[in-house]
Amino acid sequence: MQASDIDGFFAEPHQIDLEKHLILDYTLECVGDPRTAAAHLCSEQSTAQWKRVDVDEDLRPRFGAKVLELEVIEQRQALSYPVQHAAQGDIFACRVKIAHPHENFGPRIPNLISAVLGEGPFFTPGIPLIKLQDIHFPDSFLAHFQGPKFGVQGLRDQLNAHDRPIFFGVIKPNIGLPPDAFSAIGHEAWLGGLDIAKDDEMLADPEWSPLTERCEHLGRARREAEEATGTPKIYLANITDEVDRLVELHDAAVARGANALLINALPVGLSGVRMLRKHTQVPLIAHFPFIAAFSRLPHYGVHSRVMTRLQRLAGFDTVIMPGFGPRMMTTDQEVQDNIRACLEPMGRIKPCLPVPGGSDSAATLKRVYDKVGSVDFGFVPGRGVFGHPMGPRAGATSIRQAWDAIGAGVDVHTHAEQHPELAAALKAFG
Amino acid sequence: MQASDIDGFFAEPHQIDLEKHLILDYTLECVGDPRTAAAHLCSEQSTAQWKRVDVDEDLRPRFGAKVLELEVIEQRQALSYPVQHAAQGDIFACRVKIAHPHENFGPRIPNLISAVLGEGPFFTPGIPLIKLQDIHFPDSFLAHFQGPKFGVQGLRDQLNAHDRPIFFGVIKPNIGLPPDAFSAIGHEAWLGGLDIAKDDEMLADPEWSPLTERCEHLGRARREAEEATGTPKIYLANITDEVDRLVELHDAAVARGANALLINALPVGLSGVRMLRKHTQVPLIAHFPFIAAFSRLPHYGVHSRVMTRLQRLAGFDTVIMPGFGPRMMTTDQEVQDNIRACLEPMGRIKPCLPVPGGSDSAATLKRVYDKVGSVDFGFVPGRGVFGHPMGPRAGATSIRQAWDAIGAGVDVHTHAEQHPELAAALKAFG
Repeated sequence: MQASDIDGFFAEPHQIDLEKHLILDYTLECVGDPRTAAAHLCSEQSTAQWKRVDVDEDLRPRFGAKVLELEVIEQRQALSYPVQHAAQGDIFACRVKIAHPHENFGPRIPNLISAVLGEGPFFTPGIPLIKLQDIHFPDSFLAHFQGPKFGVQGLRDQLNAHDRPIFFGVIKPNIGLPPDAFSAIGHEAWLGGLDIAKDDEMLADPEWSPLTERCEHLGRARREAEEATGTPKIYLANITDEVDRLVELHDAAVARGANALLINALPVGLSGVRMLRKHTQVPLIAHFPFIAAFSRLPHYGVHSRVMTRLQRLAGFDTVIMPGFGPRMMTTDQEVQDNIRACLEPMGRIKPCLPVPGGSDSAATLKRVYDKVGSVDFGFVPGRGVFGHPMGPRAGATSIRQAWDAIGAGVDVHTHAEQHPELAAALKAFG
Repeated sequence: MQASDIDGFFAEPHQIDLEKHLILDYTLECVGDPRTAAAHLCSEQSTAQWKRVDVDEDLRPRFGAKVLELEVIEQRQALSYPVQHAAQGDIFACRVKIAHPHENFGPRIPNLISAVLGEGPFFTPGIPLIKLQDIHFPDSFLAHFQGPKFGVQGLRDQLNAHDRPIFFGVIKPNIGLPPDAFSAIGHEAWLGGLDIAKDDEMLADPEWSPLTERCEHLGRARREAEEATGTPKIYLANITDEVDRLVELHDAAVARGANALLINALPVGLSGVRMLRKHTQVPLIAHFPFIAAFSRLPHYGVHSRVMTRLQRLAGFDTVIMPGFGPRMMTTDQEVQDNIRACLEPMGRIKPCLPVPGGSDSAATLKRVYDKVGSVDFGFVPGRGVFGHPMGPRAGATSIRQAWDAIGAGVDVHTHAEQHPELAAALKAFG
């Protein structure tokens, strides 16, 4: 790129019609001049060649992505992560804010991903390391998306569960049990106080536990538990499968008594989820496989909150995400960022329920509640309910006992003195 | 995990029915005992809890993933990339080979990804860094997939192009031209000798260049170029879009004269591609947006050849991939691995054509050919054809002239002395 070409990829904020642009926050490590690298970053993700040979034209004013802000954070001796590249020069860690014209592709998730996470940003000359930290959509773009059908309030209404977290549990053993045995375990946990008994993200429609058969068992067990407890319950069935089976599996599962559906968002593809959203009769719950492969490292890839925003946009009512503490190798800040991405205003798109999870139990509920700072979250133990030494019913009970203590402002260990299920949970998992 | 539990996740190769397992090659950096970490890695990606409380059972023999090989490569002072984690102990870089029972999920791409790239591998206690280096499928698994409909031979037959590379070109300016002007450029390039004129991966179905209108123009221009040259040509239209539009866009594009279709594999989702494969009448060509976000770093994420194998499995006839040289920040070894993943035997699944690309021109053809080591590849310049100083027809001609020289064993610079298009290309891009 010639020096004279660079200016065409910079703009002042007042020159940009914000309704026509996505705002992208990248951090990057460039080799050579940061201003040149930032111009290339815009060029590569939009008009890589902005004129025909021998034609006097400039496609950049309308179609070019533009740098709005460029901040050099520091000069570095080396890249944070060594990679092969072709550039020569000093290394700078930078932050850049870009306005990307969304009419280049329109309100389509695959095309959005192709532009902001595609060949452009990841193969810009002089930028061996880059991470998309955040994305913001104008109302004109959001208007084309349905977002969650039920959202936080809809899920609470379905469960008649207000002013407290929603209590999920991942039925375990997660893989290998036939539907009847699997169902019996879920039933116990509902009786113990679980709101939502769920399939593991790896359990879908295998021959040894066909989805339809499992839904028949769990649907029946759910209704029995509702009768026994006088409380609405949810069986969250995992219909993760090829996209051309999603609608059929939705219908089969819902007809048999599944009343929320789990989809592994990235493995299925967010576009498949958006398709299912148009059809669904029940809440859609996202699980997070594959996201860590590109979000864990601080200086390369994609921040997980970008994926949370896209999952909400695609229509998920709930987003399960890696939770607090070093066990899940995710910083508290990142978990907070993801929770905020679920709940904060997003045009006409409803909030979705954040479920920060990972090795939870009655022993971790207080910590998670304190870190979330509100009751608008889901809590999703696996072994903490289904590996409880007194069994799954006691496991679920221990969670509710922990919440009773927290709600009453009583220390869970004190509360445990009168509640053997809680005491056993704290002993086993504390 | 207790010491006595670890053995249940190890097996000798002769104990494994290979037809019932996927073979997974991971590299990882673990903190603490490597054998314990490897057992956890198997547990987390299969039977995380392998028995019910108070039931005497063990689900591992049938459903557990098993370590077949574990090699400690070296002890390290620190992780290659610092990340937060909960483990304590020495750090070891390891290689591990795992047999994963595919009946846990069945022949479904989203469920495969959920198991081998999901919460299991990326959130295993004691393994902050991991990379899935390779995957191998037994015939019993492959039998459920169609793979490429046309493959390398089908594409060659359609173009009547044998014993040489296939010459693609990305029409540029990539974004912003109306269909008629865009078409005129493609037409010129076909006349100059291009086999396949293609849409950029970011150009799909925007309001300023609707896919149907573009296909009408390009379809007509293609037929005119075929008549003028007496040679079959391909217009490769980009139908990347929401998955529920793919079939409709396929039909609309093919009816108007597009005779191959581009899909951005990961942004759309491989499952959407597998769905389209069942319907397609023309070759499907993959582009690589988003893959670099999880494949670039040597010690974390997913090796790109895993994605190449999955793209072939999903049904792509051609896989465009980052090519040779530091410009694309991909090692030659990795490009070679990807080319091999396209062409090597894969049960009954046909080979697909590898297209290693990135800033190519007549000046780079010899290098690419030498590195590929055969004519079974596609060559895909953008500016090298459409930014040629004498225009796109001359740009395409320069590529064919370079190939004539290579085929005749003549140095391209010598050949350029009598061929001004080639000379201009070498001057502009060499």
